[in-house]
Amino acid sequence: MTDRATETFVVPGFRAGAAAAGVKKADGRLDVALIVADGPCPTAGVFTRNLVQAAPVVLSRERLRSGYARAILANSGNANAGTGAPGLEAARAWTALAAEALGVGSEEVLMASTGVIGLPLSVGPMERALPRLIASLAPDGFGAAARAIMTTDTVPKTFFARTEVAGVEVGLGGIGKGAGMIRPDLATMLCFLCTDARVEPKYLSRVLSRAVDASFNRITIDGDTSTNDCVFLMASGAAGNAPLAGPNDRGGPALEELVTAACRDLAHRIVADGEGATKVCRVAVIGAASAFDAQRAAFTVAESPLVKTALFGGDPNWGRILAALGRSGARFDPEDVDIFFDGVQMVAGGLGLWSNESRAAEVMRRPEMTIQIDLKAGQASFTVLTCDFSREYVSINADYRS
Amino acid sequence: MTDRATETFVVPGFRAGAAAAGVKKADGRLDVALIVADGPCPTAGVFTRNLVQAAPVVLSRERLRSGYARAILANSGNANAGTGAPGLEAARAWTALAAEALGVGSEEVLMASTGVIGLPLSVGPMERALPRLIASLAPDGFGAAARAIMTTDTVPKTFFARTEVAGVEVGLGGIGKGAGMIRPDLATMLCFLCTDARVEPKYLSRVLSRAVDASFNRITIDGDTSTNDCVFLMASGAAGNAPLAGPNDRGGPALEELVTAACRDLAHRIVADGEGATKVCRVAVIGAASAFDAQRAAFTVAESPLVKTALFGGDPNWGRILAALGRSGARFDPEDVDIFFDGVQMVAGGLGLWSNESRAAEVMRRPEMTIQIDLKAGQASFTVLTCDFSREYVSINADYRS
Repeated sequence: MTDRATETFVVPGFRAGAAAAGVKKADGRLDVALIVADGPCPTAGVFTRNLVQAAPVVLSRERLRSGYARAILANSGNANAGTGAPGLEAARAWTALAAEALGVGSEEVLMASTGVIGLPLSVGPMERALPRLIASLAPDGFGAAARAIMTTDTVPKTFFARTEVAGVEVGLGGIGKGAGMIRPDLATMLCFLCTDARVEPKYLSRVLSRAVDASFNRITIDGDTSTNDCVFLMASGAAGNAPLAGPNDRGGPALEELVTAACRDLAHRIVADGEGATKVCRVAVIGAASAFDAQRAAFTVAESPLVKTALFGGDPNWGRILAALGRSGARFDPEDVDIFFDGVQMVAGGLGLWSNESRAAEVMRRPEMTIQIDLKAGQASFTVLTCDFSREYVSINADYRS
Repeated sequence: MTDRATETFVVPGFRAGAAAAGVKKADGRLDVALIVADGPCPTAGVFTRNLVQAAPVVLSRERLRSGYARAILANSGNANAGTGAPGLEAARAWTALAAEALGVGSEEVLMASTGVIGLPLSVGPMERALPRLIASLAPDGFGAAARAIMTTDTVPKTFFARTEVAGVEVGLGGIGKGAGMIRPDLATMLCFLCTDARVEPKYLSRVLSRAVDASFNRITIDGDTSTNDCVFLMASGAAGNAPLAGPNDRGGPALEELVTAACRDLAHRIVADGEGATKVCRVAVIGAASAFDAQRAAFTVAESPLVKTALFGGDPNWGRILAALGRSGARFDPEDVDIFFDGVQMVAGGLGLWSNESRAAEVMRRPEMTIQIDLKAGQASFTVLTCDFSREYVSINADYRS
């Protein structure tokens, strides 16, 4: 698998584009994006589990029941969440206009939105931008689409890689956005993936669910879960491989690996570009009594404001880690716990190894590092990717209306 | 009940004092405190529910099984948590030295510590300070004791009030500390209360548990729960009232009211002095389907970093509140929700009342305000006291070793 992060890539069977509609602000920034397949595609979707679901989530979930779609329409600047029936109406109207312009059925157009919650979404400005949006469509337009879905993101996030599936080379390109309100069961996290592999809809859903579980559901920025999260995966089939219907088909594992790599890569980029983040930290819990305990312990540490501010300060403050573990609900004996910072042991049997403190502090200053916690209570493990909590996070969220 | 916050008060039957032992830093700041009763007192204690429990918590819990105590010894600067057997040994040794100097049994001395976790606690400096600590004991020494237990607190926290219990005037004086790592099931939260009322030990425990549940267990600063929290209540009996053995005894309700008032007042002071806090916010959930739902919804909103940074920014960002409610696990229909900021309705039936935005923004700039959320799903309610999340919180916790 050749893995490269580039904004310029092509996935046979797809075109993408973007335009400035003035949803964000009337300052010429790209804020509407479109990805279109040459024909109806098997398409899978994973959505937020927040009880409050944005209108585009409701609409796309409904339209994906068929297992097929033709286009993804997205906007930033307005989440179209908490907007009731008028919000759903706006989403329907906007996708209908795009469908008409593209000559496809409106049921074939998915929608995703990100931005301020609760603000009514006006279709007018997007309608006026539609001709420009359609005109922008190009095989290598994913980079522009990635820019158009940014909110507090500081960099556009793209992924492209190729692999061999059952003797045929296939590609997978994707774009994502994140930044704040990130926590499992997704985030203000949008991710659109396109592959030219031929895959049956049911299997495509299964591949995506597993990939999301191994990636986006293991990251956290601030413990908040958005109302708008969604991940879409479209498969054009243009590569011409024998259609994949399950993991035992030749090429199934290669496809799963490719989709998981895409999700992991974009998840990592999202954490690294978390609001105000200055570093990325892997919280790896091993030796837990159960998978649930491992997950609870890892997330409690990864979301503790005290741990995250210590991370920002470069302080190997294992006391805060131990305190977070203690309130996580995971079962363990505090006098058994070992804690390592990138292999430098700082806690042995629940007690501090103070002689290692300066080496651990050095690890904590790295832009990317791992806190490994061995609970010595069993065999289960779970790893969460998090970032630090900086003054900048507060500034962004005190000033930004999201 | 006369309620006043003063550092100078007297509770018959008690003396208090403080000294600088150099536990915090060798800069002359007060860091050891002592409260002593003239004789053995019925004493109640409530402790952290964190699985990781500091040595003084283990020791005091054990010693309080009798229902009686004579003294409370406290230090700041070192939590004596995550310190294993040597930590417990240090707590035993230090209380034994104090007991000897006071001429009481060491089993009668409770201990409480707050400060850095994981650092070994040396008894030497505290031993050398013991003569000065004993010499400082005075009936009006509570103010000095309140200063000695401060960590990142910016102001000492005291409470004093009198009430009539069964025809006899009784007083209750207390000191507390908080600042960070605050969340229900207590916090790095120490609170020592002394009353001259005569109360049976069992009833005293019950009164304290109920008061803590109505106060300290309903505050949150950062969602972190400390390893060291404890609340003690000693009753000297010097007021000479007929001993209270239950809520139906004449004077029982008056005592409960007094203890609850003390806990509520100190809990409020702790939130108002939360690390970096610039304002206090009451998150009041009503109309929940169950008490558990109400509590989950209130805490999820009160702990959401996005809600707390919006509070700091003075932004009536109800979308973030709705998103937090949606991930709380509480059952409700998003299209029924009403949200008020100090009586200014900002959300009706899940939709924003944008015409009220400027008035709601004005409310958000107040130093103290209430966010009321009506889920319209039942009759249960729960209120949590929280504070905002400022750049200063990050600075304090990135730089302070706790």
